[in-house]
Amino acid sequence: MIEKKIIKSLRDIVGKDSVYTENSDRITHSYDATQKSYLPDVVVYAKSAEQVSEIVKIANSHSIPILARGAGSGFTGGTLPVQGGIVLVLTQMNRILCIDTDNLIAVVEPGVVTSELQREVEKLGLFYPPDPASKDFCTLGGNVAECAGGPRCVKYGVTKDYILGLRVVTASGEIIRTGGRTLKNVVGYDLTKLFVGSEGTLGIVTEIVLKLLPKPEAKKTMLVQFETIDGAARAVADIVRAKIVPTTLEFLDAATIGCIRDISPVPLPDECKAVLIIEVDGDREVIEKQAARIMDIIQPLGILDTRIASTTEESEEIWDVRRKVSPSLRKVNPDKFNEDIVVPRSKIPEMISTLEGLSEKYGLPIVNFGHAGDGNIHVNVMVDLAEVGMQEKVDKVMEEIFHSAVALEGSISGEHGIGISKMDYLGMEVDNATVGYMRRIKSAFDPNNILNPGKIFQSTEP
Amino acid sequence: MIEKKIIKSLRDIVGKDSVYTENSDRITHSYDATQKSYLPDVVVYAKSAEQVSEIVKIANSHSIPILARGAGSGFTGGTLPVQGGIVLVLTQMNRILCIDTDNLIAVVEPGVVTSELQREVEKLGLFYPPDPASKDFCTLGGNVAECAGGPRCVKYGVTKDYILGLRVVTASGEIIRTGGRTLKNVVGYDLTKLFVGSEGTLGIVTEIVLKLLPKPEAKKTMLVQFETIDGAARAVADIVRAKIVPTTLEFLDAATIGCIRDISPVPLPDECKAVLIIEVDGDREVIEKQAARIMDIIQPLGILDTRIASTTEESEEIWDVRRKVSPSLRKVNPDKFNEDIVVPRSKIPEMISTLEGLSEKYGLPIVNFGHAGDGNIHVNVMVDLAEVGMQEKVDKVMEEIFHSAVALEGSISGEHGIGISKMDYLGMEVDNATVGYMRRIKSAFDPNNILNPGKIFQSTEP
Repeated sequence: MIEKKIIKSLRDIVGKDSVYTENSDRITHSYDATQKSYLPDVVVYAKSAEQVSEIVKIANSHSIPILARGAGSGFTGGTLPVQGGIVLVLTQMNRILCIDTDNLIAVVEPGVVTSELQREVEKLGLFYPPDPASKDFCTLGGNVAECAGGPRCVKYGVTKDYILGLRVVTASGEIIRTGGRTLKNVVGYDLTKLFVGSEGTLGIVTEIVLKLLPKPEAKKTMLVQFETIDGAARAVADIVRAKIVPTTLEFLDAATIGCIRDISPVPLPDECKAVLIIEVDGDREVIEKQAARIMDIIQPLGILDTRIASTTEESEEIWDVRRKVSPSLRKVNPDKFNEDIVVPRSKIPEMISTLEGLSEKYGLPIVNFGHAGDGNIHVNVMVDLAEVGMQEKVDKVMEEIFHSAVALEGSISGEHGIGISKMDYLGMEVDNATVGYMRRIKSAFDPNNILNPGKIFQSTEP
Repeated sequence: MIEKKIIKSLRDIVGKDSVYTENSDRITHSYDATQKSYLPDVVVYAKSAEQVSEIVKIANSHSIPILARGAGSGFTGGTLPVQGGIVLVLTQMNRILCIDTDNLIAVVEPGVVTSELQREVEKLGLFYPPDPASKDFCTLGGNVAECAGGPRCVKYGVTKDYILGLRVVTASGEIIRTGGRTLKNVVGYDLTKLFVGSEGTLGIVTEIVLKLLPKPEAKKTMLVQFETIDGAARAVADIVRAKIVPTTLEFLDAATIGCIRDISPVPLPDECKAVLIIEVDGDREVIEKQAARIMDIIQPLGILDTRIASTTEESEEIWDVRRKVSPSLRKVNPDKFNEDIVVPRSKIPEMISTLEGLSEKYGLPIVNFGHAGDGNIHVNVMVDLAEVGMQEKVDKVMEEIFHSAVALEGSISGEHGIGISKMDYLGMEVDNATVGYMRRIKSAFDPNNILNPGKIFQSTEP
């Protein structure tokens, strides 16, 4: 429990109405998308970097754990207060401070919702590519903390590739600036990219300078039904091998299709064992040419049906197929273990066949979909935890899945981060010495280990 | 001086023929492109990460400064052994280990010359965009250390944007791996991007995993002559404002044109006060359209002449104009002070007019050219240091130039780094607290301060 005088200090900083200690308020802020729950001692809403700084100073001087929270939509427990303490909510710091059409940058506060920024810049003919599935409710601060990805990252890269500069409150409460407003900057170490993806363990971001692109002239969306998953996996590899980089290359496997068959706006017959949603964007002439080339390349791979959107509505209908996936998975079983492994693109067929083998070996339904274009597969092990011994079974299959991804020169996380969910597996991918250097950075930035403690690393001792 | 038994240990690691202690050999390895010179105690050529590791262990246990060196083409003294010690030459680690056309990556040793990799990947229809002016002799290890840029970075980004993973020997001699071979990876802190641009002060890179792109189908090069520098500067701003991102947007000012007028393959009359070299690349249809739009946009800005290359030879002729610049500058005065400031693109007109004002105020010729598309201006103050009091005058004008760039929300270095040349000015751009965190990283990675000591930061004490 946090002492009363500290609660009073917090109230002095942000005002009475922005500090919550009631059980109901604490519970509301105890969850994230992992559906795990840890109670914070106190919930504080901040409105400025200066407030954040004052709050962090209190936390630091009393060694109270503190973690920043946006929408709580993370999949690895990044915003779970596993050691209690202060949950610092930044959703009220939600101003778009500037959209600079001359220099193609935007400056935002961390609480801005991703799709809101996208809408605003698109009105001006600009484009912010990263598009996590939660973009309609997740915040840019959270995107920075986890280095969010999304379907468009195949062509456009991840959040990190769009962050030019940050304003950050450090563990000691200092407000520092990193990077700047220019595309090039080699002035000392790149702290900006270090903070991106550090899951709130090194500092609390209070302002973000983002790079924007000109909005592509047009896009073309295609939904292709395959007779086999192997055909779809080969299509991904062949498209990349042909040196075409589509905007998105999403795939759904047979189990995923089974989940959405009844509600899909595009009919998906029983024979359809895999779906690819392919989108290309750019100048009108080019996307027509690219779409035609893609069709040529994948033609021999066992295609049942192809739908090419010719209007925005038709394109939305195709994307609706994809959007139906996540909410439908629980038809299979009530409990979902969702991981986002990555393998080099060409190894997708091998990884998919490994996953099929594991599903059979353990007798567990594994539903796979995701961003095949960059090798990022969302693996969903669907189980009923009420069954005796199920958690142990899930742990075993997960470990095998991660091992297989790493063995294929892949990664255990493409865009969700480590948080608490993958902490036990960090050492599988990153050797001890390298983890040691990460820990040294953590100690150097946060010697009292107050910033989002209990994440990424198994213990905080270097 | 390094003890004889240490020299013997070094010989035991790499062989007698790879350790040099003669004065002539030490002098050969005492320079870089800054033309400053500091004698190393010993020069060692390494052939593998394991050798590098053994050598670094010796340096660390005896607190001997050690720095890695490629071609020594850096502009800020990154490879100058300012505290003596070991210069570790990596030019013999120059193998391209793999070009993976399925996954669009390459794996190389640090001694590979940049343009050699470019040629090899282009043979396979692929593309490695970063193109520092020294690309025909600089090495990829050096590019990683300094986060090299180049003309194409306007559209394609800098070296950092293409580095997916590294193998690094740390100050303690550990060999660690960072990142991986996939585009997405959020597994712990991003040490990869931290090492890129750290100027050899955090570790010695022994292997680099690079991202490649499909090679653009075609390109179109244009040379546009302007009546005024202001017209050219406005052209840059207007092109970006129109949401066109060309591959390159290079500019030469009147003083630069004066230097090359006699030897330029494209005639440049006296009335021509500024030149823009604009290149667009991509699909054939698109570049024709983009080139036409660019011409429309810049037409009202006082154009004397436009040359559009229609063959590779004609394109090369245009680029030859740009290549003649650097070697010609000393016509103005024997001593060159070359800086690479950056400003937000739209502020180029303001920065250029500031530079003209400073040239007049101090009575010093300032020759400006560079990558206008990303606001990166190569400012060359041309003087004769034999004149009494000239160095002090140069110091003053440099300080004013850096101040102006920072005041315009720019940066004191876009692609050359800090090294020793800009050490005194680091604090002008980066606040003390932020520098403090950079120093903490340095201490955490290199507690004995053996790795390229005396660079970036004014003193090594945090």
